[in-house]
Amino acid sequence: MENCVFCKIISGEIKSNIVYDDEDFVIFPDLNPKAKLHYLAVPKKHFATLAEMDEADSMMLGRILGKIPILSSKLGLENGYRLIINQKGESGNDAGQEVMHLHIHILAGERLEM
Amino acid sequence: MENCVFCKIISGEIKSNIVYDDEDFVIFPDLNPKAKLHYLAVPKKHFATLAEMDEADSMMLGRILGKIPILSSKLGLENGYRLIINQKGESGNDAGQEVMHLHIHILAGERLEM
Repeated sequence: MENCVFCKIISGEIKSNIVYDDEDFVIFPDLNPKAKLHYLAVPKKHFATLAEMDEADSMMLGRILGKIPILSSKLGLENGYRLIINQKGESGNDAGQEVMHLHIHILAGERLEM
Repeated sequence: MENCVFCKIISGEIKSNIVYDDEDFVIFPDLNPKAKLHYLAVPKKHFATLAEMDEADSMMLGRILGKIPILSSKLGLENGYRLIINQKGESGNDAGQEVMHLHIHILAGERLEM
């Protein structure tokens, strides 16, 4: 997708410190970390929100969520972690989704307040 | 699962205001809301964390995530929403997962800070 910063990171046009890469998704650090460890897990397929997923996309998202705990020691998630998906709605952006390419925040490395 | 509060809500042994119910999961309000709207989306199958999922479970979780935007107007998510999954790790609980039955927090209804 032209002009999508995450697509450019996935294609390598924008350099990022990709710490995991498979057929479904990549993981790289968030440039504005909100916790000691803050990664983004980003599907390679471009779509903005959960609302745009077809059945294959939702299976892919399920696979991604199943993969994250397998990466626990690689990512430093042994003491637990928080996944956050911010979703723009039809008429507002209360959750503050900043990039219109679906992504999962992974926060860890310290005690997280709710 | 004996002594699991979410299993008891799902079975009806503990009364809750269930706002959505299908073959995969239920949605009910969080009793300690952290936002104007705060629901829990809870798979009917008991498992504690993403680490315990098999392939069928991850497909089911993908279906749940695909269903949430379809419920947008029913739940009041039109201005966007945040999904949070807190996960206990092997050696700590930094994210504060309180119930050891996988659940997705759905926060909405006001501007959410990150």
